[in-house]
Amino acid sequence: MSKLRVAVLGAKGRIGAEAVKAVDAAEDMELVAALGRGDKLETLAETGAQVAVELTTPASVMDNLEYCVGHGIHAVVGTTGWTDERLARLNGWLSNSPETGVLIAPNFSIGAVLNMKFAQIAAPYFESVEVVELHHPKKVDAPSGTATRTAQLIAAARAEAGTAPAPDATETALDGARGADVDGIPVHSVRLRGLLAHQEVLLGGEGETLTIRHDSLHHSSFMPGILLGARRVVTTPGLTFGLENFLDLG
Amino acid sequence: MSKLRVAVLGAKGRIGAEAVKAVDAAEDMELVAALGRGDKLETLAETGAQVAVELTTPASVMDNLEYCVGHGIHAVVGTTGWTDERLARLNGWLSNSPETGVLIAPNFSIGAVLNMKFAQIAAPYFESVEVVELHHPKKVDAPSGTATRTAQLIAAARAEAGTAPAPDATETALDGARGADVDGIPVHSVRLRGLLAHQEVLLGGEGETLTIRHDSLHHSSFMPGILLGARRVVTTPGLTFGLENFLDLG
Amino acid sequence: MSKLRVAVLGAKGRIGAEAVKAVDAAEDMELVAALGRGDKLETLAETGAQVAVELTTPASVMDNLEYCVGHGIHAVVGTTGWTDERLARLNGWLSNSPETGVLIAPNFSIGAVLNMKFAQIAAPYFESVEVVELHHPKKVDAPSGTATRTAQLIAAARAEAGTAPAPDATETALDGARGADVDGIPVHSVRLRGLLAHQEVLLGGEGETLTIRHDSLHHSSFMPGILLGARRVVTTPGLTFGLENFLDLG
Amino acid sequence: MSKLRVAVLGAKGRIGAEAVKAVDAAEDMELVAALGRGDKLETLAETGAQVAVELTTPASVMDNLEYCVGHGIHAVVGTTGWTDERLARLNGWLSNSPETGVLIAPNFSIGAVLNMKFAQIAAPYFESVEVVELHHPKKVDAPSGTATRTAQLIAAARAEAGTAPAPDATETALDGARGADVDGIPVHSVRLRGLLAHQEVLLGGEGETLTIRHDSLHHSSFMPGILLGARRVVTTPGLTFGLENFLDLG
Repeated sequence: MSKLRVAVLGAKGRIGAEAVKAVDAAEDMELVAALGRGDKLETLAETGAQVAVELTTPASVMDNLEYCVGHGIHAVVGTTGWTDERLARLNGWLSNSPETGVLIAPNFSIGAVLNMKFAQIAAPYFESVEVVELHHPKKVDAPSGTATRTAQLIAAARAEAGTAPAPDATETALDGARGADVDGIPVHSVRLRGLLAHQEVLLGGEGETLTIRHDSLHHSSFMPGILLGARRVVTTPGLTFGLENFLDLG
Repeated sequence: MSKLRVAVLGAKGRIGAEAVKAVDAAEDMELVAALGRGDKLETLAETGAQVAVELTTPASVMDNLEYCVGHGIHAVVGTTGWTDERLARLNGWLSNSPETGVLIAPNFSIGAVLNMKFAQIAAPYFESVEVVELHHPKKVDAPSGTATRTAQLIAAARAEAGTAPAPDATETALDGARGADVDGIPVHSVRLRGLLAHQEVLLGGEGETLTIRHDSLHHSSFMPGILLGARRVVTTPGLTFGLENFLDLG
Repeated sequence: MSKLRVAVLGAKGRIGAEAVKAVDAAEDMELVAALGRGDKLETLAETGAQVAVELTTPASVMDNLEYCVGHGIHAVVGTTGWTDERLARLNGWLSNSPETGVLIAPNFSIGAVLNMKFAQIAAPYFESVEVVELHHPKKVDAPSGTATRTAQLIAAARAEAGTAPAPDATETALDGARGADVDGIPVHSVRLRGLLAHQEVLLGGEGETLTIRHDSLHHSSFMPGILLGARRVVTTPGLTFGLENFLDLG
Repeated sequence: MSKLRVAVLGAKGRIGAEAVKAVDAAEDMELVAALGRGDKLETLAETGAQVAVELTTPASVMDNLEYCVGHGIHAVVGTTGWTDERLARLNGWLSNSPETGVLIAPNFSIGAVLNMKFAQIAAPYFESVEVVELHHPKKVDAPSGTATRTAQLIAAARAEAGTAPAPDATETALDGARGADVDGIPVHSVRLRGLLAHQEVLLGGEGETLTIRHDSLHHSSFMPGILLGARRVVTTPGLTFGLENFLDLG
């Protein structure tokens, strides 16, 4: 079987450099280009890249994707800063190149994506749901963006299913004891030296609880998701938003 | 909206008695019959039962289901002891009553069912998977049936996806340290006073881990699953095996 | 070896009834009396009780203890409502009966007592400490009394050791995300159907974390502590406050 | 207050280099020397070192300690390979320098030390105890040395207290399901990509469980213990074996 020809854009960044190594180490892939700032996009066509892994910055991602889609090169995109306007432009390019696929993923950690997805699936089946996120003490925001997003997805899933609000008989509470309220879901933020990034979704029903926990120790956790994205984007034309769409949730 | 007319068979058993209370308490259901040993099945037709919750014994389940299916009464079945021969007979009755639905579920705990299902979904995406089950010290078998089944489902999901065996550099080990081997998946059994029934599936990939834990504290945890089964079986003709088929995993 | 002669006061209460069974089942004890409301205290002397397990109400505990101490009967007391004035009266009686011992314990769960004690011991050695308590959703106060007390003990231990406040770079936070502040220690309260009473103390330092978790599933967890109290109080004259004083923490 | 004058031996090793930085960053310490292979020990006396942190190899540790003790320089020793014969020689030197202190610690992680100590303290008070250790999949031995040592300490504490063996009704078990037997304590070893070094001690009694968990993410976790050792060794003449002796377990 011929190998998938993969290029990395943003190859000198922290995540990009790791993606270069990960693609290089993947047995079913060939690293055909590793471009940094100032390198020419033409290299992509010249080297016959089939997929570009886009890990640059909001300032350059649009030019890069216009080139890729224009040349029928599929793309796996980790760069952030997506607005409706940007997505509309990207969709415009894709409509002119109907066989090309682009995956944009806010999070390439398969564990984080499954944590969120499982929380969403399970949420309507339990009376109570709360989220506890635990991070290193240098984090400046609380709750974490992932925890907020998880709580929103949980709340939406419960609303859609018509789940009743969780029972809570609390009459007297110290300020903050019951956590932050994100769309009705309590979210608790722990900050502790020695931790990195961790999240626990607790679901409780009559006589049982289900806990889904994700522990993230290193951004190397993004690599399996990036490789999986590259393998699947070549057979998924058009725009896909979110890695969860490439996972079999059967 | 008219209420769903539900009967309970085996109403004097431990689980049956709780099912009676749960049906009675459900706002969208009416408990029309609660039959124990010796009570006449004709009551089901006379009371206009739409769904029978079958929680008796292997000795009586076949007669009960023959009656139900024959009278177009849907059934939710927790009784065990299903063989291929028994399933074939049941399917025969169902083929003569094509609008009737029967749900047989080895486990009505939604938490346990989701724990297994999520383990199965996630297993192919991580390099390593192990199962730890923890029970009270009066349990006579190790691993638990649920843990063995979970490991088998995990192994099957990984085989189907072509996942490589988990890495393990162990060279010297005390007997038993690495757990039992169930189709290549290590399973560890803890027995501890103060525990009831708990199971943890640990999944690990580069830089991250995902843990799915189910804690079961009381058999009342079966009730939400039984009620959900009753609500859905009326619109699901034919035989369904496993509560997971009635959960939206989308 | 002769058995320890133990009486239970408040024998018809929920905890008292269990204490009766526990004393009866203990091989080194003989249950000599089980008194309920209206039963005569004289029975204690008549039956030669060496230890009285006092599980009544604030309304009767003082009379009971005055009798016990006056007759040289040691006491293990679970009844609450202790004020300085009450303790002073009790100490007065004890000064007239210098060989008699009384143990008053706000919590007889050895797990809960060790959880608090270990938290206190460890707290000065870690940069960060937070408390997460998790309870059933019928609980009316948040945080739990035990969690508040644990946080206070942690704060006191850190103050005494001169430990710096935990690092926390939070700049923007949703209200409540960082929990309640109990003497500078963040305390988070989760309320979840399916839970009973659980508490986790998280301690974090450079490159490591230590977590101490107590799960309480049934008030039968008080029995080992009550029996241990009875065994030790007979050789511990005077007033002892807190079961931790009878545990070997060496 | 004058600063504690500290030297590091083995300053170019992985742990040594970190110790150099940690001493340098400690406000109450002055780093007076950082010696690598070939550097002269005389520097220690010349720079007025009060404490030497010894992080070299079994081949050089004896010469280094003979020099230190001979010159009244206290030592904190992480180097391994201690035999009875070596300890006897060290004690001989110390008897000639009665005011000098030496701390030898097999583990400088305060979390690991407390995990073991708390397990030992709690073990006699619970019916059941098991150990689960979880490590990265490159580990060659199972169970880990720390888990084996923890189980031995637990078993010894229970033997001394006369605790009965843990209840276990297991009749049929798959090979290995119940873990390795270390002095009667079951030890389970999980190997999972994404993990580093983790250990959980589970204690269970009637109606409750207590869990003590240590997560080790980086060898920087040794630094607080090394600094604490340096601060305390100057007032603790003679040989101390084990960091736990310098922790207040009150």
